[in-house]
Amino acid sequence: MDDRILTEIKFNDQGLVPAIAQQHDTGEVLMMAWMNAEAIETTLNEKRGVYWSRSRQELWRKGDTSGHIQKLIDFRIDCDGDTLLLMVDQTGPACHLNHRSCFFRAISDSGISDI
Amino acid sequence: MDDRILTEIKFNDQGLVPAIAQQHDTGEVLMMAWMNAEAIETTLNEKRGVYWSRSRQELWRKGDTSGHIQKLIDFRIDCDGDTLLLMVDQTGPACHLNHRSCFFRAISDSGISDI
Repeated sequence: MDDRILTEIKFNDQGLVPAIAQQHDTGEVLMMAWMNAEAIETTLNEKRGVYWSRSRQELWRKGDTSGHIQKLIDFRIDCDGDTLLLMVDQTGPACHLNHRSCFFRAISDSGISDI
Repeated sequence: MDDRILTEIKFNDQGLVPAIAQQHDTGEVLMMAWMNAEAIETTLNEKRGVYWSRSRQELWRKGDTSGHIQKLIDFRIDCDGDTLLLMVDQTGPACHLNHRSCFFRAISDSGISDI
């Protein structure tokens, strides 16, 4: 990986940057997770979504346990370098609750409900 | 706003939660910004994207200066309550650099380039 990539990314004080995963063809937003420098480099090298698990404090190769891997189609960074967007081909559900997308609940004036 | 909404949201230690904005009909991911409780309540009340500006430390009614407002179509929260997704109708560009989306740069092995 070109070292200049990391200099363009604004990591937070934990060395992490938020990464949105979107299904490349339907546009569905699947999930949001976090990446550190190692996760970014591994994602580029392996052409699949690899994140940093904040709860387990280790690299998280999404799908290694579940089989629900994310093939990397395109990798984007925003204007101010503090958010990443992965356009992926998601195998199966992205959500650990077996929903295709983690965003299966709607907020309205009256509360939160499944959609 | 129903107070139970806020109890379902996991704010970070600065009282903020990341919020992704997506064009509701094309699926294009436009930007990512941050919300506090007040921004969430204002977004629901005014049916438009309202964020918390971390740099200015004030409520940011997106489009008040630029005219590039975001009409709220749908408001989602993810499975673990730590990320929001606004499905909006974006007037004009979402990005302060006049791109429709803030994610106009691609990351590849060789570096970062405009698309």
